[in-house]
Amino acid sequence: MDPDRLKTCLMAIRSGELSVADGLDRLTTLPFEDVGDALVDHHRGLRQGAPEVVFGEGKTSDQILRIAEGLLNAGSNMLATRLDADKASALMKVFPDAEYDPLGRTLTIVRHPPQSTGLGTVLVVCAGTSDLPVAREAATTARMFGNAVEELVDVGVAGLHRLLAHLDRLRSASVIIAVAGMEGALPSVIGGLVAAPVIAVPTSVGYGAALGGVAALLGMLNSCAGGITVVNIDNGYGAACAANRINRRPQP
Amino acid sequence: MDPDRLKTCLMAIRSGELSVADGLDRLTTLPFEDVGDALVDHHRGLRQGAPEVVFGEGKTSDQILRIAEGLLNAGSNMLATRLDADKASALMKVFPDAEYDPLGRTLTIVRHPPQSTGLGTVLVVCAGTSDLPVAREAATTARMFGNAVEELVDVGVAGLHRLLAHLDRLRSASVIIAVAGMEGALPSVIGGLVAAPVIAVPTSVGYGAALGGVAALLGMLNSCAGGITVVNIDNGYGAACAANRINRRPQP
Amino acid sequence: MDPDRLKTCLMAIRSGELSVADGLDRLTTLPFEDVGDALVDHHRGLRQGAPEVVFGEGKTSDQILRIAEGLLNAGSNMLATRLDADKASALMKVFPDAEYDPLGRTLTIVRHPPQSTGLGTVLVVCAGTSDLPVAREAATTARMFGNAVEELVDVGVAGLHRLLAHLDRLRSASVIIAVAGMEGALPSVIGGLVAAPVIAVPTSVGYGAALGGVAALLGMLNSCAGGITVVNIDNGYGAACAANRINRRPQP
Amino acid sequence: MDPDRLKTCLMAIRSGELSVADGLDRLTTLPFEDVGDALVDHHRGLRQGAPEVVFGEGKTSDQILRIAEGLLNAGSNMLATRLDADKASALMKVFPDAEYDPLGRTLTIVRHPPQSTGLGTVLVVCAGTSDLPVAREAATTARMFGNAVEELVDVGVAGLHRLLAHLDRLRSASVIIAVAGMEGALPSVIGGLVAAPVIAVPTSVGYGAALGGVAALLGMLNSCAGGITVVNIDNGYGAACAANRINRRPQP
Amino acid sequence: MDPDRLKTCLMAIRSGELSVADGLDRLTTLPFEDVGDALVDHHRGLRQGAPEVVFGEGKTSDQILRIAEGLLNAGSNMLATRLDADKASALMKVFPDAEYDPLGRTLTIVRHPPQSTGLGTVLVVCAGTSDLPVAREAATTARMFGNAVEELVDVGVAGLHRLLAHLDRLRSASVIIAVAGMEGALPSVIGGLVAAPVIAVPTSVGYGAALGGVAALLGMLNSCAGGITVVNIDNGYGAACAANRINRRPQP
Amino acid sequence: MDPDRLKTCLMAIRSGELSVADGLDRLTTLPFEDVGDALVDHHRGLRQGAPEVVFGEGKTSDQILRIAEGLLNAGSNMLATRLDADKASALMKVFPDAEYDPLGRTLTIVRHPPQSTGLGTVLVVCAGTSDLPVAREAATTARMFGNAVEELVDVGVAGLHRLLAHLDRLRSASVIIAVAGMEGALPSVIGGLVAAPVIAVPTSVGYGAALGGVAALLGMLNSCAGGITVVNIDNGYGAACAANRINRRPQP
Amino acid sequence: MDPDRLKTCLMAIRSGELSVADGLDRLTTLPFEDVGDALVDHHRGLRQGAPEVVFGEGKTSDQILRIAEGLLNAGSNMLATRLDADKASALMKVFPDAEYDPLGRTLTIVRHPPQSTGLGTVLVVCAGTSDLPVAREAATTARMFGNAVEELVDVGVAGLHRLLAHLDRLRSASVIIAVAGMEGALPSVIGGLVAAPVIAVPTSVGYGAALGGVAALLGMLNSCAGGITVVNIDNGYGAACAANRINRRPQP
Amino acid sequence: MDPDRLKTCLMAIRSGELSVADGLDRLTTLPFEDVGDALVDHHRGLRQGAPEVVFGEGKTSDQILRIAEGLLNAGSNMLATRLDADKASALMKVFPDAEYDPLGRTLTIVRHPPQSTGLGTVLVVCAGTSDLPVAREAATTARMFGNAVEELVDVGVAGLHRLLAHLDRLRSASVIIAVAGMEGALPSVIGGLVAAPVIAVPTSVGYGAALGGVAALLGMLNSCAGGITVVNIDNGYGAACAANRINRRPQP
Repeated sequence: MDPDRLKTCLMAIRSGELSVADGLDRLTTLPFEDVGDALVDHHRGLRQGAPEVVFGEGKTSDQILRIAEGLLNAGSNMLATRLDADKASALMKVFPDAEYDPLGRTLTIVRHPPQSTGLGTVLVVCAGTSDLPVAREAATTARMFGNAVEELVDVGVAGLHRLLAHLDRLRSASVIIAVAGMEGALPSVIGGLVAAPVIAVPTSVGYGAALGGVAALLGMLNSCAGGITVVNIDNGYGAACAANRINRRPQP
Repeated sequence: MDPDRLKTCLMAIRSGELSVADGLDRLTTLPFEDVGDALVDHHRGLRQGAPEVVFGEGKTSDQILRIAEGLLNAGSNMLATRLDADKASALMKVFPDAEYDPLGRTLTIVRHPPQSTGLGTVLVVCAGTSDLPVAREAATTARMFGNAVEELVDVGVAGLHRLLAHLDRLRSASVIIAVAGMEGALPSVIGGLVAAPVIAVPTSVGYGAALGGVAALLGMLNSCAGGITVVNIDNGYGAACAANRINRRPQP
Repeated sequence: MDPDRLKTCLMAIRSGELSVADGLDRLTTLPFEDVGDALVDHHRGLRQGAPEVVFGEGKTSDQILRIAEGLLNAGSNMLATRLDADKASALMKVFPDAEYDPLGRTLTIVRHPPQSTGLGTVLVVCAGTSDLPVAREAATTARMFGNAVEELVDVGVAGLHRLLAHLDRLRSASVIIAVAGMEGALPSVIGGLVAAPVIAVPTSVGYGAALGGVAALLGMLNSCAGGITVVNIDNGYGAACAANRINRRPQP
Repeated sequence: MDPDRLKTCLMAIRSGELSVADGLDRLTTLPFEDVGDALVDHHRGLRQGAPEVVFGEGKTSDQILRIAEGLLNAGSNMLATRLDADKASALMKVFPDAEYDPLGRTLTIVRHPPQSTGLGTVLVVCAGTSDLPVAREAATTARMFGNAVEELVDVGVAGLHRLLAHLDRLRSASVIIAVAGMEGALPSVIGGLVAAPVIAVPTSVGYGAALGGVAALLGMLNSCAGGITVVNIDNGYGAACAANRINRRPQP
Repeated sequence: MDPDRLKTCLMAIRSGELSVADGLDRLTTLPFEDVGDALVDHHRGLRQGAPEVVFGEGKTSDQILRIAEGLLNAGSNMLATRLDADKASALMKVFPDAEYDPLGRTLTIVRHPPQSTGLGTVLVVCAGTSDLPVAREAATTARMFGNAVEELVDVGVAGLHRLLAHLDRLRSASVIIAVAGMEGALPSVIGGLVAAPVIAVPTSVGYGAALGGVAALLGMLNSCAGGITVVNIDNGYGAACAANRINRRPQP
Repeated sequence: MDPDRLKTCLMAIRSGELSVADGLDRLTTLPFEDVGDALVDHHRGLRQGAPEVVFGEGKTSDQILRIAEGLLNAGSNMLATRLDADKASALMKVFPDAEYDPLGRTLTIVRHPPQSTGLGTVLVVCAGTSDLPVAREAATTARMFGNAVEELVDVGVAGLHRLLAHLDRLRSASVIIAVAGMEGALPSVIGGLVAAPVIAVPTSVGYGAALGGVAALLGMLNSCAGGITVVNIDNGYGAACAANRINRRPQP
Repeated sequence: MDPDRLKTCLMAIRSGELSVADGLDRLTTLPFEDVGDALVDHHRGLRQGAPEVVFGEGKTSDQILRIAEGLLNAGSNMLATRLDADKASALMKVFPDAEYDPLGRTLTIVRHPPQSTGLGTVLVVCAGTSDLPVAREAATTARMFGNAVEELVDVGVAGLHRLLAHLDRLRSASVIIAVAGMEGALPSVIGGLVAAPVIAVPTSVGYGAALGGVAALLGMLNSCAGGITVVNIDNGYGAACAANRINRRPQP
Repeated sequence: MDPDRLKTCLMAIRSGELSVADGLDRLTTLPFEDVGDALVDHHRGLRQGAPEVVFGEGKTSDQILRIAEGLLNAGSNMLATRLDADKASALMKVFPDAEYDPLGRTLTIVRHPPQSTGLGTVLVVCAGTSDLPVAREAATTARMFGNAVEELVDVGVAGLHRLLAHLDRLRSASVIIAVAGMEGALPSVIGGLVAAPVIAVPTSVGYGAALGGVAALLGMLNSCAGGITVVNIDNGYGAACAANRINRRPQP
């Protein structure tokens, strides 16, 4: 809420600068505008170079093109997620500075490099190479929000030595995004090794009783390591948003 | 099948010792008796001191008492599983040599110490102290079948160093029974550390999205460590039966 | 890892102070001890006044008593969760300085007030009065870990004005724990109003198609507000651990 | 039931106008015809310009064509739902006055504009643009039944101000159809803001733990706002039927 | 929203009657108060004799007593749902004019008979006698909100003649609440017989594959009769709220 | 339907014996009465000594007593199912000729021995002793409907020889009810051995992944033996009703 | 079992016609052969013109062709189920007397018209036209097994009068197969109207909360009409096998 | 762990051969390398001719080609699983000695015939021909690991005589892999006939309530035969790994 703005308005009414009718008009719309302003306020931090995000699935390349033009004209960067290669190549003809990652299925257009906003490094860890698309979506998203991001691949719990060999990187991260399918045990093991926040992302990798990622999801929700939190199956984007919320908190 | 018995019978018919009618009678019942004999045969190995097992849940102490008397009179040892303390104390008044384990809820009466039948050690590992009842049921059952059994407690994956501190015991076991609730990741980690057979037992420990052990069960079925096998939730008895099948195979 | 300790050991071998045999012995046990030490290290921060936590469910008051004596003698504070009133009163006879919260079912014994470790305030918000036990468990746990905690009750989404009336408190929190049963929509609404990390806790409040909290859990995992993370059903303790991981990160 | 018709028949028998045999014949078929008549009766209100509805999925365009010809010849309007673009264009060649909505996948042929039957406005609200196909199906169906329909799009709960900005429209509606996927919280929030009937339609929008719309369905069934009712996932048509039942009740 | 109130306030500021500071204060709180007022507004209709409702489950009789005293002192009627007999008898000692229905587990205290607000009759139909508690909760709730209520019991679909014998009552109802457990087919059959709104309430009656009411719930959501809407399992209260929303709509 | 009755009625109108008004009255109620009559007709066959059945669960012994008195006074036999021992003993004081089976939890009062209506023998087979209560409920119910019933116990598929030893009884049965919990494989094996109808009854025997009988239910629905049909979990009564429908069909 | 064959064998041994060694050989293989013979025995009844059945799904048309040639050369009729149009047309080029039903996806080759084996008529009833493929598969299968079959289409419970208009056909059937998707209520209603066996077939018709037929399956398992039995989702073939088992029982 | 290596290192430090700094460096990396070595150790047995395994699903043929070249150059054999025919033929052009099994979808390249490591025979049994792909994957995998493998096909429990005819082969196997879809009863029956370890593999064969193999999975987990263990749905590879763990244990 913005008491200053309200005060200004009331004083203008008192002084006669603003008629009661106009004041009425303006104030009638205040409550929700206000909430909206507030939202804009709290988005402001994000928007110092932060991208607008377009969910590419279920949109035609024409639709995305129009959205992209609007965003870029307004001076924003853009991140499109879940974008298949065909749509991406259509967009890249129009925006030669776009970059497409076929693995993570993200397309990024950066006109104003995102300012570094985070307190530390976001480390994206994934259990198997099949989990890479989700991990990559998380990494690209976190970077576009201005975070320093590192990636660690193929460190599943059935080969502990590979994970333990990177203990230092795990322990120096500010936030860890742990991506795993199948039994989803990776975040539990990491959660026992570090004190930092761990965001667990179950993937739909696996078959049969993996139930499309539900097995990994349940495993992560029941982690025996205290303080692991979980996002939806294959939701690399959401994990990055959560990591960004954590990493960019204002200094006390 | 028992060709000798069949041959004897046929030769008695040829010699006239056995009438065709009587032979007919005897052979008519052979097929299924035979299957039965076969079963008895393959049970014989087990029964050199192996207990008869009584599932205590849903039986009154009177019923169990009558069963126990029958078994012991027939010269067998006895193992009762899922037996609560009240029923156990009723039985112990009648059989002073019975031993009751309130944690694993097993009662054992050993009249003929089980012969050692196994090729090596069955190691029962459990993730948390809450998993102990299931682990204990497995350990007691395996012992009653004549296996050498060791136990390893509270080595959950959120505290890897506790597990890794026992790498030698893990690697020297002939069969490992890995008991875990919550996310059920323990067998995956163990499966990556040893080459021996690993039998995973999910437990109903946990709440909410643990879904009464279904989360752990799914985790174990989706283990990223190749060659883990799984039994029903809380089925310590079944895991011990499986370990016994593995450990007592005849020498080649 | 502790290179200093390793270096000292090697230098003692070089100098002859330590025999090769003894050095061998010491180093053989290093790898896992080392992981253990590391864990202790990363726990050290937590332990400046942080409690040891005892999960009270499924333990007798005698067992808890023995654990408590051990912890307190070792100079630790103690937090027992999921402790019913009977067990609590047994403990309070022995420890007159214990405090029991019958709503959140927590018992706390504070010998050394926890040092404030957090960067800001942890705000625990809950949708209905039936969700209070879970919210209270979260609040007490977070406080015992040294965080400043505030609570906001009965602000469910069916009465938006009650929630919106506290917009300032929502926006000034460092981390928000949002507790809700039934449809679990509260974290989505809050996630749209604030930029801080939001940890969603589904509760088992509800009946029928609430499926013991699964409805709320699924709702939270599918939040349309980006960056909400979720813990297990009724897991107030886990949410507080996650909030603590977020709130106590070292300054950059 | 139609006592008049029955009475006429009986009086014709009494008067000899109708033979007992013919009367027998006619009355033998009455019981079920009667139920049928009754149905027709209660459908009559609907049918003053109301369309016959054809479920297009799983029917060939030839089949739909034949059905359409029958209906239109009988003087009815027609609404086809779940009709993909290929089938639609085949139909539009034959019926140039047909209108196809590719978003809602409905095709309508109006020969007799539906009479306004409703008491007020049916307001169709949807959370995200991805929910539009279901919302549009609901809106078109309700219109074809003679209701005044308004639409409100993209007012998901993660951006409350957008929803609150339309409070007047929400409060002036006679019936609200609230369409949402993912966590499905929109109807709960609306239900707390208005006193009118709210029909919740979960959509299959989302992925992973959205479970094809089950998450939204469960959320809506567990709404903390009293008096929300729910229809099947993606069932815009059913919601419109329910809204029509509510909106067209006879005046007292 | 209340433009008059806002105008008055602004005019008082203009005239000096109200200082800018006080106006600021008042307006700062307006947005949410306003939403609150709005809620109160739309509740006003309900509250002309409508009860406050207390969910009795999980509250002590002392807690309910205190709530009841508050409500009654404020001049309200009271309805307590899901109240067991013990708590009810405690309340009836204090409030001799309370009425308790042990079947529906509701307790009502009526100080001001609810004004009839509905447009017609709410008919509560239930399939079997085991569904009666839920049906009764619905009936009592609807009555307390000022609706005319009729009840029809034991008209399950396996004995169609019993249901068809009441076709007239079904067809003259303004809203029908159809309560059924097991396969939950009753609302489908009724929906095919009447044009009025039908609210389906699945009950947890049944065993095994009834899955605690989920079978009935799914059946109702998949009704082949268009326009049936559904509430949560056993949610008689919610069905009555929905019926009330439908039945009490303002005349156009 | 009853054309004779209709004809009589019409002729009475023609002759003036019956006024048009009275005829109208009578015929108005015909349709549904007719369905009712029909039901009574098709029940008549059953009722030659067949019992009225009272589902005992959830009824007080007083309620059952009143029902029983009504039934017996009307000359019917009575079968009460799911009746616990306490209620049974209360009933047996009043009806000394009642017989109670504590295992199957049925109470029977036979005043007119049921006439044998079946074409052959109903054989009730069950896998384990824990399945006996359900098997017994089926057997008693089938007997009370006038069928010749045989029982075969403890012939689970893990001990095939026990089942195969009874091949003759299996093959001479007219209908087989196969009762099994756990994996529910018994009906598949029997279905491969006999040509008679096999009704499969899953029981809730088992734990963990037995999911309260759902595992057995799914197993039976997916039987590889063609032509197995299934009833609800633990529904011995329903299986007997189905067997009775099959066994008592009129001779061609 | 075949005592004659056994007796002949024993007498040949006694007489010396058969050596003990050869007798041994022959008898060793008897037990299982015997079970096989028995199976052949009980299949003999079926095979008087009964088809061999080939499950077409997942087989190439070449594979089916080879199987068909084998069967037809052996003098059998053939029924192929779940056969798509492409495979069917390949087969029809080779077997010009084959008949293909594209709706039920069955192909039949009848060289020896099946003898009528049934006691009465099998009536296949289905709720909606979308259920027709499953109903047709059931009807064709039952006919191929030698049963008289009638079909009744589009008599769903939301239009009761259509079903009731066929009460006579329902009541004169020997066995009824009731096919329905969505809420699956049809068998319950039919079960209340007739005394004959009713086999319920859930179909996967529906969407969203139909869960691929699980809703209908659960509805049928929980039918309030006693004695309904159920087969797997879409299993028209299985229902016909069950109907055949019921309809072809030997006369007493 | 490798004490020798450690000792050598320490002695080199003592002797000055290795500087403290270099020793420090080497030892710092020891802990995890060590775990890695250990893994290599326990893999050594496997690798005497054992293949590297490539999961073919989700990899392009180019990716697999590159992996294959690496493996074969390193002197390893190769097994690719879940490889469709297109990718296989691309690989076979490059590696003419590759063998592809289109049924089991495995491709094998054997440069060094695997040494026989097992104690006995692995018998792969499958219920129906539709289960063959999974059975074949298991058989090929077990063979590539150096086990003697036999296969037994189409011995489902609905035709017991076919299974019983192979009792000798069942009883002489060292480990049995029992593969079955639908109700998954085969392992239960086999488990009752043999004393050897039985690994149950549920397949996704079936439809409707088979739930993609979940029915078979649940059936196997609830086997009434003690000591059956289970792997994931369709996981022939995993079953072979488990069989290999069991069969290749070191002699005592």
